[in-house]
This record gives sequence, C-alpha cells and structure tokens, in this order.
Amino acid sequence: MTRAAPIPAAARAILDGDRRALARVISQIEDRDPTAAPITRALYPRTHAVPVVGVTGPLGVGKSSLINLLVGRLRALDRTVGIVAVDPSSPYSGGSVLGDRIRLDRPAGDGGVYFRSMASRGEAGGIAAATREVTRVLDAAGFDVVIVETVGSGQVDVAVRDVATTSVVVLVPHLGDEVQTLKAGLFEIADVFCVNKADLPGADLARRDLAELVRLGAGRAGWTPRVVSTSTTQPAGIDELWENIEAHEKFLDDSGQRPLEERRRLSSEIVELVRERVGRRLSDRLERDPSLRGLLDEVVARRIDPRTAAERLDRPGPPR
Amino acid sequence: MTRAAPIPAAARAILDGDRRALARVISQIEDRDPTAAPITRALYPRTHAVPVVGVTGPLGVGKSSLINLLVGRLRALDRTVGIVAVDPSSPYSGGSVLGDRIRLDRPAGDGGVYFRSMASRGEAGGIAAATREVTRVLDAAGFDVVIVETVGSGQVDVAVRDVATTSVVVLVPHLGDEVQTLKAGLFEIADVFCVNKADLPGADLARRDLAELVRLGAGRAGWTPRVVSTSTTQPAGIDELWENIEAHEKFLDDSGQRPLEERRRLSSEIVELVRERVGRRLSDRLERDPSLRGLLDEVVARRIDPRTAAERLDRPGPPR
Repeated sequence: MTRAAPIPAAARAILDGDRRALARVISQIEDRDPTAAPITRALYPRTHAVPVVGVTGPLGVGKSSLINLLVGRLRALDRTVGIVAVDPSSPYSGGSVLGDRIRLDRPAGDGGVYFRSMASRGEAGGIAAATREVTRVLDAAGFDVVIVETVGSGQVDVAVRDVATTSVVVLVPHLGDEVQTLKAGLFEIADVFCVNKADLPGADLARRDLAELVRLGAGRAGWTPRVVSTSTTQPAGIDELWENIEAHEKFLDDSGQRPLEERRRLSSEIVELVRERVGRRLSDRLERDPSLRGLLDEVVARRIDPRTAAERLDRPGPPR
Repeated sequence: MTRAAPIPAAARAILDGDRRALARVISQIEDRDPTAAPITRALYPRTHAVPVVGVTGPLGVGKSSLINLLVGRLRALDRTVGIVAVDPSSPYSGGSVLGDRIRLDRPAGDGGVYFRSMASRGEAGGIAAATREVTRVLDAAGFDVVIVETVGSGQVDVAVRDVATTSVVVLVPHLGDEVQTLKAGLFEIADVFCVNKADLPGADLARRDLAELVRLGAGRAGWTPRVVSTSTTQPAGIDELWENIEAHEKFLDDSGQRPLEERRRLSSEIVELVRERVGRRLSDRLERDPSLRGLLDEVVARRIDPRTAAERLDRPGPPR
C-alpha cells in the first residue's frame, strides 16, 4: 500500500465544485501539459465509475441536437451531466475548430451541466487517453453522467470504445451507400443504435434493417445492441434512448462485464500514453539530434528504408 | 554507401509487372507481416516519387465515383494508375468492410489500372505508415500516378497529409452545419478543394464561399488551395480537377517544397513505425508478463493512475 500524497489545491478545488479549476485542468490535459499530472493523480482514486456515454456517428446525423435533448432528459431526472465534445480540428494548428459548438438549451445558471470541447491534438490513440482522463476529472468533480461526443467517423469513433462505458452510434435513414458499408464496423462499437431524424422517409425501414442485423449478429459478450428511433425536430424517443443506455449500464453490472471492460480500457490507455511519450521524444530527436538527423538523411536519400530506420531506433531496452 | 543486397524474387516480380506478386506483398503490409520487409526494402530505392493523390472528405460526398472518373481521365491521357482505398473497418475484427467497393468502369483487361482496398487495422498513425509503404510499392511497380482514398473524416483524413503529395478534399454543397465547422480543419490538409455534386442547388454558393475562404487564408507554404466544381452524374469538371492536381505537383517541384515535404512525411512515418512497434510489444507484455500485469492490477484498483504507470513503463533506454 502506497501512502496517499497530499492533495494539490487544484484537485481539492475540483472536488469542491470549483468550475474554473475544472476548466483549467481540462485545458492542461488537452495541451498535454505535465503540470496536470499531480492533479489527475490525486483525483484518480476519487472517481466513482459513473456512466460514460459515448455518442458517435457520421457527420450531419444530428449528434449535437440529440445530446442537447438527452441532457434535458437527464436534468429532468435530476442527474448532473458533464459533456466533452472531441472535435476534429487539425493536429497541425492545434486549435479547436468547433469551439463551444453545442449550444445547450439550459436555463442560465444551471450548475448541473458542464460542457467542454476538446481539440483532437495529436493522434487518435493519444486523444482517447486524454479524453479518458477528462472523463475521470468530470467524474471526480461530481457529475452523475459523463457524455463524450466524437465528431466524424473512422478510427476516432472506433476509439470511443476505449473511452465510453456505453457507446451510442447515431445514424440517419439515408446518408448514402457508404453508411451501409460502415455498418459492419459500427456493430463492434455500438451498444445502442440510434436512428435519428425518424421523421424522414425510410426511418422505419432503417430501424427494421438494423434490428434484423443486430438479431443475426452474435452480440458482444452477451449484449445484443438495442435500436432506438429518435427525432430532434419534433422531439421523440429521447426517454427511450436514455432507458436503453441505462439498460446497458445495468447489464455491465449484472454480468460482471464492467470490471473486465474497465481493465481493457485502462490497459489500452496506458499503452497509448507510452506510445505518445515515445513518439513525442523521437519526433523531437529526429529534428535535433545530429545522429538521428543523419539516419533521416539516409532514408530521404533512399539508402535506408523507413522500416529499417524504425528497427534501428527501436532497440528494445530494459523494462519495456 | 551500402552495398545493395540481392533483390528478393518477389520484389523482382513486382518490378517486372507481376500483379499477383504485387497483391501478395500488399496483403503482407496490411497484415503487418514482417516477411514483407525484405521486399519493401529492395523496392524502396526503385521508387520514382510519382504523384500520390489523396482523396478525402466526409461520407456520402461521392469520392468513389469521382475517383472512377479521374481514373478514366488519366487513362485517356495514357497514364497508368494504382489506387488504394483505406477503409474504415474495425481494428477489432481486422476484416475489410468495403472489399472491392469501387467498381471501376474500365475495359476488361486494362492492365494500366490496379485497385486495392486496405483495412485500417490498428491505429491511425500505423495506417498512414502502412499506406505509405503500399503507395511506394505501387510506385515501384511502375504506376504513373497513385491515388489514395480515405473513408470517413477526422484523424484518418488528416493523416492523408502524411501520405499524399497532393491532397484533394471533396465536399458537397449541403451536408449539414457540421461540415461548415470542419472547413477550418480541412484547410490545413487541402491542396485542392473539390465541390462535388455541382448539379445540386447551392453548389455555386458553396464554391464561391470556399474560394473566398481560401483567398483570405494565408495558404500553406506559398500555395493557395484551388477550388474545383465537379459532377459525377453528368460528368463535369474532371479535367479541371486533374489539371489542378498537376498544378500543385508542378508547384512542389518549382518551389523546392517537394523534398521538404517528403522529408517531413518520412520522419512522421518512421516515428509511427517505432510507436507501433513499442505499442504492440507493450500490449503483449501487459497481457503476459506477470510484473506488468501486477502494475495493471494496481491501476485497476485505483492505487496507481494510468499516467504514473505509463511513466514507469517508459524509462528512456539507450538510443531512443
């Protein structure tokens, strides 16, 4: 047993509900600022394993409006909600594109909701690790439910499984043939499918189609993904959406899957953090260290191929 | 100067135009099979730095149809084309979702076109490295132009800059508000913007809007992104699209940017390859090595936080 270190003031402030302290540490995590480390370390044992709901899906399906309504539902149930939107801004500028894109329709001064967008700096894996850290800070800050919205589709969305306890995949009836082809990939991340814009033609068909696919599929570790229809223009299905999310959370507890999933996520988070450290150090040295620059010169001159260069740089050291 | 090693038979076959040998080594690269290494190593000095055109954009914008027409244009110009589509299939199953999704309208037996889809196994960074290796194999195999299609949006698409010499971002007039917010991020990857479905209402506005944004933007290293309108239903703008891609390729040569960009891409590729090696080794050891499993147990029990665990695992060794 390690003796607990004294709690830094910022961590104490976050535990006491100080929103400015919360915002500051999230920015530090976003910036990969090492001064966040003692704070997140102190908060880690003070998390409560609250539900982390990942909401993902292609562009234009209405994820933000859906989250807005879901937050309203949760507030009506007297649950507090922390939301983090991971946005698709470029790793080159490092800037956040979306800013505070979601405009939550909340009464002024509703302290039960906290929204924050995060730029997806660096790589998909590193983003997942940073996002998980933010969800834990929100958990420690006392929110009952944490929602993570990812923008776009592809790897980043798949990474939602490394972040969320329940993953909601949002689709719309007709988004082109490409979505059809995506479905198979989405099956492995979706705990709940949400067919949004249920007022559009083809919505019933899309729902039946998905339900059929779900029925045929094996289901992940004993859970058959649920299919819910929603509409945000004439709000409908939001209660059912939340009920199905809660049903999955209950399943995680009843089946004993929760600790197994948490272990898998933590393992993947640690690996990503190490990868990120190694990558950052190496990028830096390839720029500055003359011997490494010489190696890069050889690659540029086509005398050494990139794989061989990587092998030379990756001589397994002691503990790795 | 290193003495050249003897060329493996498979590499020789690829240089001689053997398509089965080509297909085999691409599968090996896709599978991260180390037996590909001597082949890609032998091919590396035999590449010609052909144009690698990345085509990216959100789901449903018609990238595949556009590429189909672009290939037709290139064949009319008597250029051979190798195409690799990086698809969004899940890293969990490892299977390719799309298969041979693009149906190229080519006369039977047109040996001047080779199409291959690649599953995006593993992480975004690793995919970029593997995709670059495939583009070089296609280059060595003698194709005049290589096209890389990425599916989805977000990190994977941003990674196209680490793969392509010219990046084409495809948009459509109205894809919802979310695309608007994406634009800023896309500006940093687009050398050419393509407003597809130019027959839809709003296309002129979208084009003017983009052109205006481009005019205001600084432009990357002396290049102002071009804006082209295309239609694939009543084919239009395809010649102009190719002309603008070529204009960018010419700019890379005239401005001296090509070697700088190539150096940047190679550096990032090497870093990703090292990261991938480190991550794979560590994931493996976290499962099997009792001391590492013990560390993970401590993290799961909330006694050690993930960052601290990552620090302990990442003790900088000799050359790194």
